[in-house]
Amino acid sequence: MASVSIEPSRQASPGPKAPPSPEIVKRSALEEARSPTSASVTFPASEPLKLDCGKTIAPFTVAYDTAGTLNASKSNAILVCHALTGDQYFLRTHPVTKKGGWWDQMIGPGKPIDTDRFFVICANILGGCMGSTGPVSINPATDKPYGLDFPVITIRDMVRAQVRLIDHLGIDKLFAVVGGSMGGMQVLEWAAHFGDRVHCAVPIATAAWHSAQNIAFHEVGRQAVMADPEWLEGRYLLEERVPRRGLAVARMAAHITYLSEAALHAKFGRNLQNRDARTFSFNADFQVESYLRHQGSTFVDRFDANSYLYITRAMDYFDLAAEFDGVLANAFRGTKTRFCVVSFTSDWLYPTHENRKIVQALNAVAANVSFVEVESDKGHDAFLLEEPVLFDTIRGFINSTASRLGLSTARSAA
Amino acid sequence: MASVSIEPSRQASPGPKAPPSPEIVKRSALEEARSPTSASVTFPASEPLKLDCGKTIAPFTVAYDTAGTLNASKSNAILVCHALTGDQYFLRTHPVTKKGGWWDQMIGPGKPIDTDRFFVICANILGGCMGSTGPVSINPATDKPYGLDFPVITIRDMVRAQVRLIDHLGIDKLFAVVGGSMGGMQVLEWAAHFGDRVHCAVPIATAAWHSAQNIAFHEVGRQAVMADPEWLEGRYLLEERVPRRGLAVARMAAHITYLSEAALHAKFGRNLQNRDARTFSFNADFQVESYLRHQGSTFVDRFDANSYLYITRAMDYFDLAAEFDGVLANAFRGTKTRFCVVSFTSDWLYPTHENRKIVQALNAVAANVSFVEVESDKGHDAFLLEEPVLFDTIRGFINSTASRLGLSTARSAA
Repeated sequence: MASVSIEPSRQASPGPKAPPSPEIVKRSALEEARSPTSASVTFPASEPLKLDCGKTIAPFTVAYDTAGTLNASKSNAILVCHALTGDQYFLRTHPVTKKGGWWDQMIGPGKPIDTDRFFVICANILGGCMGSTGPVSINPATDKPYGLDFPVITIRDMVRAQVRLIDHLGIDKLFAVVGGSMGGMQVLEWAAHFGDRVHCAVPIATAAWHSAQNIAFHEVGRQAVMADPEWLEGRYLLEERVPRRGLAVARMAAHITYLSEAALHAKFGRNLQNRDARTFSFNADFQVESYLRHQGSTFVDRFDANSYLYITRAMDYFDLAAEFDGVLANAFRGTKTRFCVVSFTSDWLYPTHENRKIVQALNAVAANVSFVEVESDKGHDAFLLEEPVLFDTIRGFINSTASRLGLSTARSAA
Repeated sequence: MASVSIEPSRQASPGPKAPPSPEIVKRSALEEARSPTSASVTFPASEPLKLDCGKTIAPFTVAYDTAGTLNASKSNAILVCHALTGDQYFLRTHPVTKKGGWWDQMIGPGKPIDTDRFFVICANILGGCMGSTGPVSINPATDKPYGLDFPVITIRDMVRAQVRLIDHLGIDKLFAVVGGSMGGMQVLEWAAHFGDRVHCAVPIATAAWHSAQNIAFHEVGRQAVMADPEWLEGRYLLEERVPRRGLAVARMAAHITYLSEAALHAKFGRNLQNRDARTFSFNADFQVESYLRHQGSTFVDRFDANSYLYITRAMDYFDLAAEFDGVLANAFRGTKTRFCVVSFTSDWLYPTHENRKIVQALNAVAANVSFVEVESDKGHDAFLLEEPVLFDTIRGFINSTASRLGLSTARSAA
């Protein structure tokens, strides 16, 4: 039987608050990892999770947040799957960064995914660092952080943990599973292995496998982390150290891939940062340098370096066709799920041609699929940004599928 | 008066050769930097080089290699400009890596740039680490390596040093200046500031400025180097240390940008490296990971980390229009130089639209310009690889310009 906490962090606050500093924010991120302010459910040692690597993990916790109200027939649940560095705070203010939810433009009252009508769930992935079990968590076998003793997980393993959560919430069938980037990979795993539990699936800006180029970028990030002597072969938490510089470099490299060349040009061009001329030095003369350095350093305050290694590895290992004898269409044979696949013209990380492969596989098995390529110059990050065509697409697909299923279209239906 | 050495390294060999090891190769790279096996010319303290940053450097050395024979009228000289990590060994076996010359498919007897007809010169750039003065060199003011006391240089400064070499060789007017990538930037500087000394200019796979995305990738590389504690704020040579891991990460990140997604896919796809299945670890399971790690580690054996910082900085600072009141066409107003601009369809680092801006600026001043976009899936690196259309383009342009100028088309003309 799973034990549930929907209370804020049970960890007592350590006295009066000191003024924020990077060190304190970092401790707070670690606190969140061990004892999230969101809801969470812990599955006991008697209910282990079997993983693709052959190992099991138990006990394990899934931290999650919800918005809206589950109706009596439990037919209005939408699972949102987050991307690499996302978490369950899709709507609520993030407890560490104090920023708004990462998808609060997409989800909320009256938004494309309307929380007046739907019960939206988002769980921190297995291997994450915002409360679900991951390398930061305490390994019950050693009473120390897992570190590299955490098993190498896959996207499918993340979905297995989500299935446990959905079971725990008593939901037989999700109205929808929606996600972008790595979230889209989870959507595909749901549709492929748990299709009878998903009315509709919305994979956005994703791919059915990780390309050589994407593996290459991730490998650079991992090598940057591992090259940092503070990483200590993954044991840094034991020594109360943090591989800040390596993780920051990894984030900087990745961040470039989330934006298009056009977006970088429009946003920064060759503009100088608070200066009139080049300084003939290695300072951040250009705005784009300053921006990247900021992205790197703030990321370190909220994210765990080992989690970054594990999650990028899971993405690299992702190859849905390989789970079905090398034929992607086999993943969807006989599916009754309705699909809406979305890509962005300027996304070079998960380009349209990769998304189209998913559509082609779905077409090959005569699945019900819509495909929209959104014209955007924002690059891969477009799925997280103000993109009216994306919003209209999601709203239209959700609403039309809901009315086909006879789900009340009235707001605040219960 | 410049002192000239065309003898092999004057450094005595340290006794019988030990079997090669990474450490010994590294020392050998340092030896090459301080005392190249190629020809070199040292300009004395009385002939300082004035730099864009306002400082001067003196004495300074330009290491260079040549092939072919300079004719009596000195009218058959072609200057080849190398890219970021290139050097003067365009044809000859590299003294450190023992690999063939980096452009030996383009240049040689009977090749598109035919050394039976032309006298080809290639100089290690100022700031480089294969014998020209750079951060590895001994600072005469301190008798220690320059390190970060080396002045921050520009592409134009590199060209200023080349002009000194060409003067020294007694050549009034080059038949051609040719180069790809950063070499192409040097070609543009030659044409813009020394147009009366260049009959024809061939910038390949380049741009008239460094874009925000390109600055961003370079900044990641620099941060990776600087994050390595062995970098020691640039003083690593004094302590006999090397920021190997940081420089390797920088090279890995950069290397991805040199290839197209299609090339990476064709070359590696998701193939595993000497194993049948994923190992569920952070080993280099995928061939592309193994390849990148190899690229990173071998690079460190031949290249200096501080040189990498200085050269990437010079590229980021490059903005030819900014030298001409913000109007690129002004750089070429009244030019009599003939241009051949070449781009590659799959080059996303210096994409066709950047090369086309150069062509448009040349057109705006009615310059004589050919433009060829070569269909290739090899990405930016295509300019260094077997690309028949590139070879035909260069051969055709060189030969037709030579015959217009009345340069004998017979081979071995002197």
